Amino acid sequence: MDAAVRKDSRGAPYLSLKLVDRTGSVDARMWGRLPEDLVQEIPGPAYVDVEGNAHEYRGTLQVKLDRLRVMRRDEVDEEDYLPATEQDRRALAAELEEAGRTLESEDLRQLFELMVSDEDFWEAFCEAPAAKGMHHARIGGLLEHSVGCLRIARALAEIYPVDRDLLFFGAIFHDVGKVRELSWDSGGFAYTTEGRLLGHVVLGERLVSSYIRMLPAFPEELRLKLSHVLISHQGETEYGSPERPKTMEALLVHLIDNLDARAAMYIESTQNVSPGGWSHHENPLRRALYVPE
Amino acid sequence: MDAAVRKDSRGAPYLSLKLVDRTGSVDARMWGRLPEDLVQEIPGPAYVDVEGNAHEYRGTLQVKLDRLRVMRRDEVDEEDYLPATEQDRRALAAELEEAGRTLESEDLRQLFELMVSDEDFWEAFCEAPAAKGMHHARIGGLLEHSVGCLRIARALAEIYPVDRDLLFFGAIFHDVGKVRELSWDSGGFAYTTEGRLLGHVVLGERLVSSYIRMLPAFPEELRLKLSHVLISHQGETEYGSPERPKTMEALLVHLIDNLDARAAMYIESTQNVSPGGWSHHENPLRRALYVPE
Amino acid sequence: MDAAVRKDSRGAPYLSLKLVDRTGSVDARMWGRLPEDLVQEIPGPAYVDVEGNAHEYRGTLQVKLDRLRVMRRDEVDEEDYLPATEQDRRALAAELEEAGRTLESEDLRQLFELMVSDEDFWEAFCEAPAAKGMHHARIGGLLEHSVGCLRIARALAEIYPVDRDLLFFGAIFHDVGKVRELSWDSGGFAYTTEGRLLGHVVLGERLVSSYIRMLPAFPEELRLKLSHVLISHQGETEYGSPERPKTMEALLVHLIDNLDARAAMYIESTQNVSPGGWSHHENPLRRALYVPE
Amino acid sequence: MDAAVRKDSRGAPYLSLKLVDRTGSVDARMWGRLPEDLVQEIPGPAYVDVEGNAHEYRGTLQVKLDRLRVMRRDEVDEEDYLPATEQDRRALAAELEEAGRTLESEDLRQLFELMVSDEDFWEAFCEAPAAKGMHHARIGGLLEHSVGCLRIARALAEIYPVDRDLLFFGAIFHDVGKVRELSWDSGGFAYTTEGRLLGHVVLGERLVSSYIRMLPAFPEELRLKLSHVLISHQGETEYGSPERPKTMEALLVHLIDNLDARAAMYIESTQNVSPGGWSHHENPLRRALYVPE
Amino acid sequence: MDAAVRKDSRGAPYLSLKLVDRTGSVDARMWGRLPEDLVQEIPGPAYVDVEGNAHEYRGTLQVKLDRLRVMRRDEVDEEDYLPATEQDRRALAAELEEAGRTLESEDLRQLFELMVSDEDFWEAFCEAPAAKGMHHARIGGLLEHSVGCLRIARALAEIYPVDRDLLFFGAIFHDVGKVRELSWDSGGFAYTTEGRLLGHVVLGERLVSSYIRMLPAFPEELRLKLSHVLISHQGETEYGSPERPKTMEALLVHLIDNLDARAAMYIESTQNVSPGGWSHHENPLRRALYVPE
Amino acid sequence: MDAAVRKDSRGAPYLSLKLVDRTGSVDARMWGRLPEDLVQEIPGPAYVDVEGNAHEYRGTLQVKLDRLRVMRRDEVDEEDYLPATEQDRRALAAELEEAGRTLESEDLRQLFELMVSDEDFWEAFCEAPAAKGMHHARIGGLLEHSVGCLRIARALAEIYPVDRDLLFFGAIFHDVGKVRELSWDSGGFAYTTEGRLLGHVVLGERLVSSYIRMLPAFPEELRLKLSHVLISHQGETEYGSPERPKTMEALLVHLIDNLDARAAMYIESTQNVSPGGWSHHENPLRRALYVPE
Repeated sequence: MDAAVRKDSRGAPYLSLKLVDRTGSVDARMWGRLPEDLVQEIPGPAYVDVEGNAHEYRGTLQVKLDRLRVMRRDEVDEEDYLPATEQDRRALAAELEEAGRTLESEDLRQLFELMVSDEDFWEAFCEAPAAKGMHHARIGGLLEHSVGCLRIARALAEIYPVDRDLLFFGAIFHDVGKVRELSWDSGGFAYTTEGRLLGHVVLGERLVSSYIRMLPAFPEELRLKLSHVLISHQGETEYGSPERPKTMEALLVHLIDNLDARAAMYIESTQNVSPGGWSHHENPLRRALYVPE
Repeated sequence: MDAAVRKDSRGAPYLSLKLVDRTGSVDARMWGRLPEDLVQEIPGPAYVDVEGNAHEYRGTLQVKLDRLRVMRRDEVDEEDYLPATEQDRRALAAELEEAGRTLESEDLRQLFELMVSDEDFWEAFCEAPAAKGMHHARIGGLLEHSVGCLRIARALAEIYPVDRDLLFFGAIFHDVGKVRELSWDSGGFAYTTEGRLLGHVVLGERLVSSYIRMLPAFPEELRLKLSHVLISHQGETEYGSPERPKTMEALLVHLIDNLDARAAMYIESTQNVSPGGWSHHENPLRRALYVPE
Repeated sequence: MDAAVRKDSRGAPYLSLKLVDRTGSVDARMWGRLPEDLVQEIPGPAYVDVEGNAHEYRGTLQVKLDRLRVMRRDEVDEEDYLPATEQDRRALAAELEEAGRTLESEDLRQLFELMVSDEDFWEAFCEAPAAKGMHHARIGGLLEHSVGCLRIARALAEIYPVDRDLLFFGAIFHDVGKVRELSWDSGGFAYTTEGRLLGHVVLGERLVSSYIRMLPAFPEELRLKLSHVLISHQGETEYGSPERPKTMEALLVHLIDNLDARAAMYIESTQNVSPGGWSHHENPLRRALYVPE
Repeated sequence: MDAAVRKDSRGAPYLSLKLVDRTGSVDARMWGRLPEDLVQEIPGPAYVDVEGNAHEYRGTLQVKLDRLRVMRRDEVDEEDYLPATEQDRRALAAELEEAGRTLESEDLRQLFELMVSDEDFWEAFCEAPAAKGMHHARIGGLLEHSVGCLRIARALAEIYPVDRDLLFFGAIFHDVGKVRELSWDSGGFAYTTEGRLLGHVVLGERLVSSYIRMLPAFPEELRLKLSHVLISHQGETEYGSPERPKTMEALLVHLIDNLDARAAMYIESTQNVSPGGWSHHENPLRRALYVPE
Repeated sequence: MDAAVRKDSRGAPYLSLKLVDRTGSVDARMWGRLPEDLVQEIPGPAYVDVEGNAHEYRGTLQVKLDRLRVMRRDEVDEEDYLPATEQDRRALAAELEEAGRTLESEDLRQLFELMVSDEDFWEAFCEAPAAKGMHHARIGGLLEHSVGCLRIARALAEIYPVDRDLLFFGAIFHDVGKVRELSWDSGGFAYTTEGRLLGHVVLGERLVSSYIRMLPAFPEELRLKLSHVLISHQGETEYGSPERPKTMEALLVHLIDNLDARAAMYIESTQNVSPGGWSHHENPLRRALYVPE
Repeated sequence: MDAAVRKDSRGAPYLSLKLVDRTGSVDARMWGRLPEDLVQEIPGPAYVDVEGNAHEYRGTLQVKLDRLRVMRRDEVDEEDYLPATEQDRRALAAELEEAGRTLESEDLRQLFELMVSDEDFWEAFCEAPAAKGMHHARIGGLLEHSVGCLRIARALAEIYPVDRDLLFFGAIFHDVGKVRELSWDSGGFAYTTEGRLLGHVVLGERLVSSYIRMLPAFPEELRLKLSHVLISHQGETEYGSPERPKTMEALLVHLIDNLDARAAMYIESTQNVSPGGWSHHENPLRRALYVPE
């Protein structure tokens, strides 16, 4: 909750704040008897217990509060408040697992199964956010993003001449390094020290390589192609890929990742915007976004 | 045909040249008795009549010529030599027409049919190259690119919440201005004066608007959304879009266009590269591209 | 009015605020008995009724307030407070009209007169701001900017070989799309939905084209040259022109526009700076500006 | 003269070359009996003696040669062949001198007269090219450019509130460092060692400062303002100005310089282009330029 | 002192502020009885008198205050509070003087001694900060930076073939223009008007040139090489050097300057970070910095 | 050998060519009786056997040839012609080995010894070029560059507070991935497929990690710090480092690498330039470089 006391056009003071929970965020206003401690100080984020009614204001959803109480730290379990996907995580994971089981390449299928059968890893993968703030920044976000990419990859494999298995594997696991780059167990999403020093691109390639080392028969050429897909998926060196995509599969994985990420940025940034309205300018796409009538 | 006389590693002179026809290009070499006029001068492109054998050299297809004769200008019909798609243009056009007939929006369907029923326009659209040199630079290239984009759009419409009709219309016609920006009736692909002064982005929006003016009942809001999709499809102002995409449909049309264009760049640049080989560095993606074994 | 309570170097609290009216803005300070409601809350912009004395502080004009009262919303007519040009709008409009009447090209003269005789359009043109905030952001600002550009164009037509009529027409109307891109009738300057989706470059060309369509004899080549001047006037694609200037007239219109805009940025940013003083760093030129002694 | 032997569309060999003299350059072609030594070797630039007829080819002037002879080095006086302005240098110099005499500031007038009365300097200034290749790259080019800038400055002084004397002095002498940065006495235009190590921006400020030191009463504040105009005239640090313009006069001198330079680039690049034709893409503006019909 | 009232996780209000003195800065917190005037207003920087205990919080040093009193302006001598180097300025100056005395070049040695024997100049040089905020922004900072650069230069002179005297002179005096660009006698570090209009690059070269003019026998070629070192030391034009380094000595002086500046940025930005902790993201290197355990 | 036939200023034809061997390259000219086969064709690089005299021409060393013969491919052993360091490779390697033996960290010393005792690796490291063309592009170039970096590191360890062992190890091995990225056993320097797909940054970190896996007691925190030094040494993401340097040691290794590389670029680009002369503009520093008199 971010809060400030402002005055409306008739001069009446009101509390302006932003309410956030696991399902998203919404602006709120409170008139009338304001809580004393909020009026006298400018608080940082806090856990609050509220009651009120939602309505639309200038094309954006807003909540008018009737009651607001700041909760004590021991009343809340922070994990309950982390944003989380609204989709069924089990169903999403099952879609990936099914894709892995039907890979035609024996080598990639074995690698996939080795990874999925590592319970700690697979649980982390299904729980991790896809980012700290740009898009899919929610519990299960990495899973959602990976499924979105897989679905696009399936369509592209019908259109272009491409190594389907490598494309699908890359679409699913290009961001796997996020499970080491980010932490989500301390009441919020944060970068780990390892994540800041090495980044998810290197960490992801290293993680997959560590599983490949358990498969002595894994072909060297396939490992090279797969590593290339993983380290080049950011598309350009300035976005953190040490080399740019140079195979068809690496190129497509990058373009798919970019497409799903940008689509999510639009959807998340216009979440509360009504038809005919505009989003704020401050969002990952850095432009006001329009929701047509 | 670009040609130069070089010496091989044993010191023997040979003619090095690039052969281009409607199906693509290939490097060629000719040893032994070289045509006199070629040895003494450095000619520009010319029409030639050749005989020889294809083989692989350092991972790239190459033709060893046994015989080469420069043709006189009156022996050739330049149109025969323009690169052209190898796909069936009628089938591609039919795929677009079918997509237009099944649009759910009455307004967009009428607009689509108005455009397709303008024979001069539709013939030009099915014949035009998609570019002068970057990708799909061949007769029927615009058609191929439009079909490729439509196919991706169909898949994305299953994944994201989006106005399907607007997305499909945009995927098909985002590059429609190319029919005015480029000419292909003078023995090669060239920019028109109008194309250089206004560009395909403005010319395309203007062309679609001229058809919309024939449909008095066309909704103003729909025209605005469609114009936005057309003028923003380059994605960023530095690539020639006066505004960046600000609706979901505009964003997706841009991303689809980019994806199909880059996939085509890879495919076209590695056309003659053998498995395990690398393309030249000079191509629209500006990097050597790898064709895995 | 933006306000904050600060402490001076002797520890006394004072109110720091920025006063804005139609003629510009000025910083103000208020010591002593501060209005209760301002001290306890941080208000957003509000209409205020003040009394006080202007003086210079560190080279910048400042107002020391004796009295300040926040006005009720029903006490003010917002239009009264929009910044507006201090020049005589009728005289400026007359200067443009005279220039139009003396164009030598029959076609451009007819087009000019058609536009000026459309009362709704001409009134909007004479009222519109030239921008939301960069320069000439005031009622009549577009008119001022157009007159400034015309005057420079007149001088340049004496120096360079150029089509005078096209240069003058372009200097006057290059920014005509601003009448659709911006709104100024809701208590402030804002972008319209159409303005954000298409931008003033496309809207301006479309507007002029709609008048040209009423003149069946208007030459196609002239329309092309004029459209090119309009769509290229931002000079570079990254500033929103889909093509860069490629004729002498288009090049000069861009350079004139840039020159008048930057001169206005300097003048507006140093408005309250005394001789020997420096402006703030935050202005459209993004550098502190010096007013010599 | 740059030359290459090519074949025309009927297979006939011809010599393609570019003729340059003091008045400009033109493409030329020669068919039939080609000079032996040219056919067998690829010569670099050379002095030639030619006869032939000019005609238009695809919108550009071209010369068809009847006779061509390579001249011996002792037959030519290289200085005769350096491009030079076609304007009357004395008249241009007189225009500047008159402007200097009518400066209202006693200090700037004295400085101006001190500089003009230094015969070596003034002769160099009236002879120097304004650049090695971008624009006004000809004997007298700096003079032409300075006069062009002065004329624009005169018009702007009528439009904006500005220190006229400082603006005029800056318009005339902003590029004065070119007399040290470039050399034009060795058969071509070249950078001096001093020019490459310090650049014309620093050399110009240093040159003017050396004259100011002879005027003990010259005000320090005026020297500072003038030095600022000189060192900031490139407009942005990436173009070689250690500081960006921060006064109105410095800003205008930069914009004037830019305007006159770009207008000259257009004029020089389209010199041989016929109405309705396009220039080459390779010119200082890096785009094909159009000469309307 | 920057201050704000926040609430901790148990809901208790506390004062959050940043304490700055000559030795650096540190974050502080104060709970319990807060000073009345601070709670009711948001003060700007102020001089305060505090008592409390330092401890580590999330890897960064923090002070918990027991007592805080805002001081009256007449209680403080602002100069006492300017950050200053913790090193012995006399020893640093002596190290430079010794280096100057042992230059092998008679000309550079004389120049050095002329500069050091100008007491006003030398005192200013030993007192000046090296920047307003990026690195070495403290009294004596320029001296520290110059000594750091000299030490690196000494090592490089053992490794590369280079003119040692010119390298050492450049390492010591490349930033000499800072003594004119910045002021530090008005209670803080600020840019002078001359500094903003000409910049330290031009001012430094001008300063050294003014001493060289007192040495009539100083060789012109040496002056040119030295001026080049001075004006090119920023390395790239976008960082304010009108020409890039083109001699070995100029290249090395730029690289040394950059190295010492960046090392200082790291050291200064991690000053209060404990082992295993991360700095803020907002620092001159624009990235969070890690202090390993 | 690159060759072209040109004409001198008296019209005499001469052969212009560039001679390259293991010690560097030099321009050459040949007048008089030119070899027939060279005059009639434009050959690519070839092995030649020459005789002639060196002299200086416009400040650059040039060779005037008396005799030139193109060698047959079977006459040459290509390895003999690869450029190679002129320094004693054994002495350079011994300097590194000594540095490794005296590391204070037991862990890093063991790692170093493990690497040096892997004969295949160490031989490759001592033989590899440091680049394909930018700097140190010669057999032993990586060794030279590593020693240069180590020497600078030693000096910096005396100046800044830093982990000496980590700094020295990073200085020596930051470019270790070059042994996999480049090949030098096929008659020239080339990129390997692995090198183009993964790059030396990733390959280097992977190589060192593979040795660390053989040392079970190697501390995880040290491995992380070392991996960070290796992957961040390019300094910025656009130069291929997936993360920028965030520790003091990583920052210094990057700055040292940059310093030694740029110094080498100057030295190598001015190799044949006489005092008072200028290098070509085409070199890795992309500017003409001056060698003072």
